[in-house]
Amino acid sequence: MPKTSNYGLESLFHPHSIALVGITLNEDWHWTRTLLDALLEFKFENSIYLVNPKGGKIHGLNVYRSLRDIPDDRIDYVISTVPAKAAPGLVEECSSKGVKAIHFCTAGFSETGEDEGVRLEADLVKLSRQTGIRVIGPNCMGIYCPASRLSFNPRFPKESGQIGIISQSGGISNMLITEAGWRGVRFSKVISYGNACDLNESDFLKYLTADPATKIIGLYIEGIKDGNTFRRTLEEAAQKKVVVLLKGGVTKGGANAVASHTGSLAGTETTWDSLCRQLGVMRVHSVEELSDLLVTLVFMPIPAGNRAALIGIGGGAGVMFADYLEKSGLTVPRLPSELVNQIRAFTSPAGNMLMNPVDYGQTLHEVDKFVEAIHIVSRWEGIDFLTLFICPSMAQGNISPIMDAMLKVGTALKLGTASVKPLAIVIVRTLALSREEITELSVVMHSFASLNLPVYCSFDGVASAILYIVGFSKSHPGKLQNLRRALCSPKV
Amino acid sequence: MPKTSNYGLESLFHPHSIALVGITLNEDWHWTRTLLDALLEFKFENSIYLVNPKGGKIHGLNVYRSLRDIPDDRIDYVISTVPAKAAPGLVEECSSKGVKAIHFCTAGFSETGEDEGVRLEADLVKLSRQTGIRVIGPNCMGIYCPASRLSFNPRFPKESGQIGIISQSGGISNMLITEAGWRGVRFSKVISYGNACDLNESDFLKYLTADPATKIIGLYIEGIKDGNTFRRTLEEAAQKKVVVLLKGGVTKGGANAVASHTGSLAGTETTWDSLCRQLGVMRVHSVEELSDLLVTLVFMPIPAGNRAALIGIGGGAGVMFADYLEKSGLTVPRLPSELVNQIRAFTSPAGNMLMNPVDYGQTLHEVDKFVEAIHIVSRWEGIDFLTLFICPSMAQGNISPIMDAMLKVGTALKLGTASVKPLAIVIVRTLALSREEITELSVVMHSFASLNLPVYCSFDGVASAILYIVGFSKSHPGKLQNLRRALCSPKV
Repeated sequence: MPKTSNYGLESLFHPHSIALVGITLNEDWHWTRTLLDALLEFKFENSIYLVNPKGGKIHGLNVYRSLRDIPDDRIDYVISTVPAKAAPGLVEECSSKGVKAIHFCTAGFSETGEDEGVRLEADLVKLSRQTGIRVIGPNCMGIYCPASRLSFNPRFPKESGQIGIISQSGGISNMLITEAGWRGVRFSKVISYGNACDLNESDFLKYLTADPATKIIGLYIEGIKDGNTFRRTLEEAAQKKVVVLLKGGVTKGGANAVASHTGSLAGTETTWDSLCRQLGVMRVHSVEELSDLLVTLVFMPIPAGNRAALIGIGGGAGVMFADYLEKSGLTVPRLPSELVNQIRAFTSPAGNMLMNPVDYGQTLHEVDKFVEAIHIVSRWEGIDFLTLFICPSMAQGNISPIMDAMLKVGTALKLGTASVKPLAIVIVRTLALSREEITELSVVMHSFASLNLPVYCSFDGVASAILYIVGFSKSHPGKLQNLRRALCSPKV
Repeated sequence: MPKTSNYGLESLFHPHSIALVGITLNEDWHWTRTLLDALLEFKFENSIYLVNPKGGKIHGLNVYRSLRDIPDDRIDYVISTVPAKAAPGLVEECSSKGVKAIHFCTAGFSETGEDEGVRLEADLVKLSRQTGIRVIGPNCMGIYCPASRLSFNPRFPKESGQIGIISQSGGISNMLITEAGWRGVRFSKVISYGNACDLNESDFLKYLTADPATKIIGLYIEGIKDGNTFRRTLEEAAQKKVVVLLKGGVTKGGANAVASHTGSLAGTETTWDSLCRQLGVMRVHSVEELSDLLVTLVFMPIPAGNRAALIGIGGGAGVMFADYLEKSGLTVPRLPSELVNQIRAFTSPAGNMLMNPVDYGQTLHEVDKFVEAIHIVSRWEGIDFLTLFICPSMAQGNISPIMDAMLKVGTALKLGTASVKPLAIVIVRTLALSREEITELSVVMHSFASLNLPVYCSFDGVASAILYIVGFSKSHPGKLQNLRRALCSPKV
């Protein structure tokens, strides 16, 4: 196998031109068409060529009958959606055209566990070695790199960020980027790499470790190709960057699933746990947790300790939230009476709670008072961070008054007149609202995210993410502080 | 205190007429107005009278200046939103008008921890005893009884069901009814009872235990008034019905919150845990878990064991879901090769997984095949139940093709041609979609719910709910089977 070099991989992320080979002609809804839709939506910076033996036109673009017919001598990068059987032939054709790398979306290789698929993948590896053409996949979604306007999903954010993702699953890439993206997280490069027949997790991890645009690396791994190489690579990555790992297939049933998903060997729960501990890699156990931790790393200043103040709307919500935080290992100390009295001086106690949790639901419409209460609580030396909580499905009737108040609170936070401590926003997710209310809810979430505040969708989500960074910053002194400085410095 | 009788409480749920005392005149958005909106939206079956010293009209209804001015000699039930200070005076006025019960929404009593509030609540109790008028609250939302078109929230379902809820928090009632209601659960009676100065959790629990319309009782308790009475009442309830309990304030921080929310003493985690075990009460730890368990009890036939088959869309989703199920204590056995071959006979292995999890994402548009695959898996003796999973935010681009396929799968399930085993639907919740997509998602969820299928919004939610009922049906033989027979029998 040719030695991996950053230069070789750089052309994957900034190709001179792209050919989409195997694109479907007449079915607009087909997933091969979504790949083109994504490139057009992103306005990919260089040439896009389409190939299908039937010829024709799609969105006014010429469809060439073969790769050879394309009148361009420099096609760096081929995205292939041809059936597995046609894959080896395509590598040979690409070789004659000087292609540097092929991303095989198509599945039907070793992950099927069937002889033909295993043989076809072996052929692919052999041809890749013979021709020197690097292969991503097969059975994956490929590359998202907003800087070069390269994307495999039209709905991904168009702006670049400082998080790199290496994911063995395309679906998990989609979920992570849309969900974390919706909360303001932005990415440098994302690679969905599937069966990893040539380029594998270690190759991409080396690349992102060296990539100056990437400060945090997130990994979704089902199985690894070469344990020793991966271990060394992960160790170096964790020394230079902040690394978060989600391992799929840690149970017997999950490992069976992994075998038929990407044809990988999964490894045991304890192996992965001790590996991450030894190397200082943060470990999460679900896509939601990964998403919450990325939001936290990007937007939450590191609290000095585990003492939380809760201020928001809803008594029952406050009780539940306090229980969640304390069960997870954080503490919710009682507000001292002099501070209660300060808030009490301008707040009716009827229908509000002034102890920590502070429930300001009854006086919600008087936003100046709400903001002043936040300010008083945030200055209290007995806490390390603040969480502002709302739970829209606990509302009586329409949620608009709450959403209006939250937008005004956001404005006050923007002016810096509210919290002097790290602040997290928790808006408990619900779908049981009208279309209009869901839109209002989105506006509020985006408005907090645009203030560079971490926004969470569940009580357990915010509890475990904050507990994690508080613990990690104690066991790895300076590391997250350095990350925050790096994230705030001008982008490369 | 007058002895509680079902007759006395019956008039709370089917009052001859209602007076809303203290309703706000000019502020449409005010929460006191939401109470009226709810009664109007539900078309409450009897007379509604409005009272405010200023007089006037709201929505064409006359506003009386005092209760005495109302030209009706039989006002059973008063919903009061007057300030705490005016509460004792209102009890005296109600007495002269022959009122049977007053629901005090208003807060500002013992839960404030302030002398005045404590004194006002004591006055309320004294007057209630002297006049024989029963009091709900203060500091609560009161009663939802769809059979008599009585509701405190305009968005609650209008149809009756067989679940009774007793909740110390109005917000938690709102969340539970809207979220579980959105998934098809319907309620007989819901009582949000707040500080419980007169009628308390034990009174309502006795009532629901005797109520033939109620088959399942859900409780959200922050603190109890009389431990011995409650224990005896809970024991009897658990003998006659299925009882699910959510205890708020089980941590130190949560208990502090409880003290300022409803002025209650919370009790320790271990006390509640052993109480529930001894009495055969199901215990949950969040509103989401309570909602999931109610959905399961109402819609899921009890699986004979803990072996799950997973069939749905998405490889990474399948891996994560299998891990969740096995970590929680369920098992995901490997599909035997003869069944794999049966599915393989009409399914390409490329992009699909045929092992359990079965990922049918690549052949999604051929719904007949998808349904046949579900049918084959459901007949396998090696499993006890099936879960159909989709994770919309893992989709590549627009989710419409997936939603279309799911509606067609629903139709096949309706015809009974799909699953022969208990079936759960999991649609992982996301807000990171367009308005149109969120609407499509809701349509699909409602369509499954209307087929009386249990619909879940998260992998961990379905895993813990099913694990719970499988375990409970083993430790309490016959109980859940009897419940299912009762739920299916004609409603009382």
